[in-house]
Amino acid sequence: MDNFADRLSDAICRKASRVMVGIDPVPDRFPSCLMSAAGRRHGRSRRAVAWALQEFGRLVIDEVHQVAAAVKFQVAFYEQWGVPGWAALASSLGYARRRGLLTVVDAKRGDIGTTAQAYAGAFLEGTGGYGRSFPPPFAADALTINPFLGTDAMAPLVDAAIANGRGVFVLVKTSNPGSSDLQDRSLTGGGTVTGAVAQLVTELAAPHVGDCGYSPVGAVVGATFPEVIAALRQSMPQSFFLLPGYGAQGGGPAGLAAAFDRQGLGAVVSSSRGVIYAYGAVSATLDEVRSSIAQAARDFRDQVNAAVHRC
Amino acid sequence: MDNFADRLSDAICRKASRVMVGIDPVPDRFPSCLMSAAGRRHGRSRRAVAWALQEFGRLVIDEVHQVAAAVKFQVAFYEQWGVPGWAALASSLGYARRRGLLTVVDAKRGDIGTTAQAYAGAFLEGTGGYGRSFPPPFAADALTINPFLGTDAMAPLVDAAIANGRGVFVLVKTSNPGSSDLQDRSLTGGGTVTGAVAQLVTELAAPHVGDCGYSPVGAVVGATFPEVIAALRQSMPQSFFLLPGYGAQGGGPAGLAAAFDRQGLGAVVSSSRGVIYAYGAVSATLDEVRSSIAQAARDFRDQVNAAVHRC
Repeated sequence: MDNFADRLSDAICRKASRVMVGIDPVPDRFPSCLMSAAGRRHGRSRRAVAWALQEFGRLVIDEVHQVAAAVKFQVAFYEQWGVPGWAALASSLGYARRRGLLTVVDAKRGDIGTTAQAYAGAFLEGTGGYGRSFPPPFAADALTINPFLGTDAMAPLVDAAIANGRGVFVLVKTSNPGSSDLQDRSLTGGGTVTGAVAQLVTELAAPHVGDCGYSPVGAVVGATFPEVIAALRQSMPQSFFLLPGYGAQGGGPAGLAAAFDRQGLGAVVSSSRGVIYAYGAVSATLDEVRSSIAQAARDFRDQVNAAVHRC
Repeated sequence: MDNFADRLSDAICRKASRVMVGIDPVPDRFPSCLMSAAGRRHGRSRRAVAWALQEFGRLVIDEVHQVAAAVKFQVAFYEQWGVPGWAALASSLGYARRRGLLTVVDAKRGDIGTTAQAYAGAFLEGTGGYGRSFPPPFAADALTINPFLGTDAMAPLVDAAIANGRGVFVLVKTSNPGSSDLQDRSLTGGGTVTGAVAQLVTELAAPHVGDCGYSPVGAVVGATFPEVIAALRQSMPQSFFLLPGYGAQGGGPAGLAAAFDRQGLGAVVSSSRGVIYAYGAVSATLDEVRSSIAQAARDFRDQVNAAVHRC
């Protein structure tokens, strides 16, 4: 099964889960016992923080791997810690894969052709050199991409994804309030900027539809705008939706159902802070942290399942 | 002098140069003697490639540091090589700074508030942790940012830049042919998507104008679209322009003059491949590589100076 949309559909049916847990690691919110252990091991350094990112990622993955269809890593929270942060991301991606989770790298990349090709080499496909092929150092099952530069900037990432059984999620309507600044602007030909992006996504998605009826060229649509979801479902019938913003950002089950088809396929809902910091206080013990995260992930899965048809 | 626009203006006047050399390192185009040396040192590994990236960057910086006002690092070409690639970027950024060059990181970051804050921590300002402040691991004088998510996503990066004497360049009209797909679309209220971005940039730029008359909130405007430059100069009178696409992408001196004021300030023109691969064949000796890059940088500077008024 080489089509990412088919692999995601399979994970959804197999786990009876339509959720993705977002890993946005913020050391200030980690249990203090973990940060103390990191400090004892590596001093009060970036390396210590990176060690904590990796341990915390492993803890989250251990608790959610049977409950979530996928995990989504937000690269900014790794990049902020420099080279050791990137090493932690590579390690956590590998760990998630070994635990049977599909992985999404939320990097929102978008750049002109030759540069987009280099980004593909980082996340989606091997790069040639010295007469051999180097695998992507931060290999993910899917990558989020930014459409602002247009189709010729997205094409190398789409092509690399398709050729390697991976996927992309194009930002179509983001979950933040300021998404209205540009995305909601009306175009003279009718529709909005978001509508124009949806059209580009539809064209990119069409040639690659898998057995499940969806394409590995997916769309990011904020769960914070339920009224937009149904309209975008109509205009992008073949794209898997990644719906971020559930939980901490204010998105709820209302309106999510419109993203799913009658089999309960076609979308996956993402929550980050609402799950991974469910324990609240940094004084929590590791046992409390583990059980809170596991419970929050189950609740999240159940809430989403209750709002949609099941397969 | 804490205002990035003032620092950039000062560098332009001091060096009598309005150019920025883009470092887009592609090992396949490196002199083969450099790649062989890397292989002997580190085997045919990612680490070998990263060593070559660093050596090549040092070579370019040595040849252009008196000729260019700034250097621009395209992060994709480092990220592609994984953790050692990121280490090479950090090292090259430090080397450029020590040689007196202003540094721009071309990362085109753009994400919702909390994530944008983490990106600021990677490139623009220190991050707290363990009761201390960690400096940005990939510190740059300026960062390119993507406006698609709107003002609330740009604000944390702008605020971090201003507070730390750094700058941002917002993508307004990119240099690739596909930039027409979204950026040129007409809005019902008049103007285009690019025009709407220009308006957001103008609002973000206004409160921070320096002694030179420009703001550290700058704009990326493709040198490949000379007809657009003059119009955007009118609508963003206080933003420094970064004009990419000169040389290999087809941009020439025509139309560039409109980006500059009567003192020859207000913009900087970027060329990457046209300068750093000026030696052509990978069989070139290191001496030939050095002299070709130095000559191409001087020619580039002189061409741009000939096209604009001087300070």
